[in-house]
Amino acid sequence: MFNQDMYKLGSKRSVIREIFEYAKARSAEIGGENVFDFSIGNPSVPAPECVNESICRIVKETPSVQLHGYTSAQGDRACRDKIAENYNARFGASLSGDDLYLTCGAAACLTISIHALACAGDEFLAFAPYFAEYRVFVEGAGCKFTPVPAEDKTFQPDFEALGRALNPHVKGVIVNSPNNPSGVVYGEETIERLAALLRRKSKEYGHPIYILSDEPYRELVYDKATKVPCIFNYYDDTIVCYSYSKSLSLPGERIGYIAVGPKAADSKALYAAVCGAGRVLGFVCAPALFQRVAAECDGKTADLGVYMRNRDLLYEGLTKLGFSCVYPDGAFYLFVKSPEADANAFCARAKKYELLFVPGDDFGCPGYVRIAYCVETETIRRALPLFAKLAEEYKK
Amino acid sequence: MFNQDMYKLGSKRSVIREIFEYAKARSAEIGGENVFDFSIGNPSVPAPECVNESICRIVKETPSVQLHGYTSAQGDRACRDKIAENYNARFGASLSGDDLYLTCGAAACLTISIHALACAGDEFLAFAPYFAEYRVFVEGAGCKFTPVPAEDKTFQPDFEALGRALNPHVKGVIVNSPNNPSGVVYGEETIERLAALLRRKSKEYGHPIYILSDEPYRELVYDKATKVPCIFNYYDDTIVCYSYSKSLSLPGERIGYIAVGPKAADSKALYAAVCGAGRVLGFVCAPALFQRVAAECDGKTADLGVYMRNRDLLYEGLTKLGFSCVYPDGAFYLFVKSPEADANAFCARAKKYELLFVPGDDFGCPGYVRIAYCVETETIRRALPLFAKLAEEYKK
Repeated sequence: MFNQDMYKLGSKRSVIREIFEYAKARSAEIGGENVFDFSIGNPSVPAPECVNESICRIVKETPSVQLHGYTSAQGDRACRDKIAENYNARFGASLSGDDLYLTCGAAACLTISIHALACAGDEFLAFAPYFAEYRVFVEGAGCKFTPVPAEDKTFQPDFEALGRALNPHVKGVIVNSPNNPSGVVYGEETIERLAALLRRKSKEYGHPIYILSDEPYRELVYDKATKVPCIFNYYDDTIVCYSYSKSLSLPGERIGYIAVGPKAADSKALYAAVCGAGRVLGFVCAPALFQRVAAECDGKTADLGVYMRNRDLLYEGLTKLGFSCVYPDGAFYLFVKSPEADANAFCARAKKYELLFVPGDDFGCPGYVRIAYCVETETIRRALPLFAKLAEEYKK
Repeated sequence: MFNQDMYKLGSKRSVIREIFEYAKARSAEIGGENVFDFSIGNPSVPAPECVNESICRIVKETPSVQLHGYTSAQGDRACRDKIAENYNARFGASLSGDDLYLTCGAAACLTISIHALACAGDEFLAFAPYFAEYRVFVEGAGCKFTPVPAEDKTFQPDFEALGRALNPHVKGVIVNSPNNPSGVVYGEETIERLAALLRRKSKEYGHPIYILSDEPYRELVYDKATKVPCIFNYYDDTIVCYSYSKSLSLPGERIGYIAVGPKAADSKALYAAVCGAGRVLGFVCAPALFQRVAAECDGKTADLGVYMRNRDLLYEGLTKLGFSCVYPDGAFYLFVKSPEADANAFCARAKKYELLFVPGDDFGCPGYVRIAYCVETETIRRALPLFAKLAEEYKK
């Protein structure tokens, strides 16, 4: 009658959403302060002051028709130029405003980029653990989605597995660093190795294999030594998908950009394909007011220090209790090995202590759980004794 | 290498966009006041005061994390409830917040609804003249797009042509009243006739034929006698696509909603399919701040009286000069018969007088031009003598 695949995608609540709803109901029963919801990746720190200050000033200063009117489909010229300029200054890249397509957040960046690239029979790879919606986006574009396992201990890409997965149908590899859910950052050496392999395979297959770099957590790294390499400087056939959701704590406002590698093969035409895909999917322009806000606040961030404190507290607390977890250099997640084989059973047991987190199955890594630490620091402090009780259960 | 259909859609500028760019360049040459750009449907009146007032107040009053955070994918609960309540009060319908899916404007409403409905081999109909992007959206969902001619003199639906076009593959009929580009409104009798025919055919084919009612111009009607019927009250299998772009002069902010007919067959599952389609296409939630602004300002409008004055001035002026045009009850366009067979030639001739408008070919009606009167009233006043000179050319 109507599309049953869409029905299934809309009616099957994601596990994260299930837990989120449970947390709300449980909070009503026993009080919010007694429920420890580590399930959702919603920024817990306010947007930096420049955001609301910009909103009010822009609204006051700009004539309504100009402010709230359509911008060009790819975004306001001045905003794109400013963002490109900042980008180049920070990363030593050579973007122009004409390489940027402003749109409604990271999800839109990904669907638009995938539709721009996808031809019949194409395949996209992503390194596990991966954000579960990648599969939805790739399959929604009629392509095959193939996860590539990570190295067991480090959650860095397993290059042998990648070598086996690559084939002439692969159109793109989705890279997400800092990673949701593992918090791992891919360093320069990893990116160089990835670039070399993809260059070789692109040549062998006679067509570019694109890197789709999904970077909403780009600014969320906590140690001075941690650098997030700018992939444009290592690999030409790259499309960067960026969102201000996490850096400016604006996930609801849906603002981000696609940056098409200026040295990608036939870059201008690829950019046109991005514009065409945006049009077909129903994106007209990114929200106009937030184009201006993003351009004004680009390069600033919310107080990310809170996340670092949370990470340190939680990572130290959990490892002391005997939990095993790769050290997260960025994002706001810990990806913890379940002390029993079935992570769902572990989550159920944690629930008895009102500790809520997400099994790794949907991220392509059964046997792990994702613990989001974008919460009040005090929540973590009060949760640790409960984690201790939970750990006790596995020592019996 | 990448998707060539997307490349074509992104690189072939729309005729409207071509003319818009020409107008900018020409304005730089001879001064903006000497160029009469009637090509773009961008509201020319400011948003009502409640919009900017709401923005600043909401920003001041609402904690940042709550305001700028993710809302649920279908939109904030309170906003949906408020909009549904207003809708029912105005139109005597029985929507609940659970029938509404807030999203990024009318284009998103359409692509999401079409993807929710579309199965392999499906076909969608639209009455000519029609908004050119309908074809892009329907074909982008892998379906066949078939225009149905309008009646010659009135631009009302031609029911005999519709009868011939209907077949078991038709999943939906796109209705756009007040119409872009003709300005025509479909009255109660038309909607009743349409509903009766579709009910009969749905029964015959054994599946619902949906009405997709694209209603961004719903509030833009100028005579007291003109009523825009609420299609839910005539036909159960209806999805309404609404945008605040024109009523609140907010086209750049991308805010609108899908309302799924509460009496549609399997309505809850259809709503779930809408949620699924939004997810697949990369829509996460509608821009959060503007969800609240829209809910607060729902039912209010910009000063639409300006458009009425413009319509009267232009309609009277042009018909006096001998141009032929159906009387537009709504929207902000005149759809004028070209005085020569080729509307493109007519547009080229008008250009000599710095009069810019759009040939009807892309709207499925060659031999007509669309003249957008969402401009300063003074622009129309000053343009009329030039229209007089243009008319003279055809009297020689």
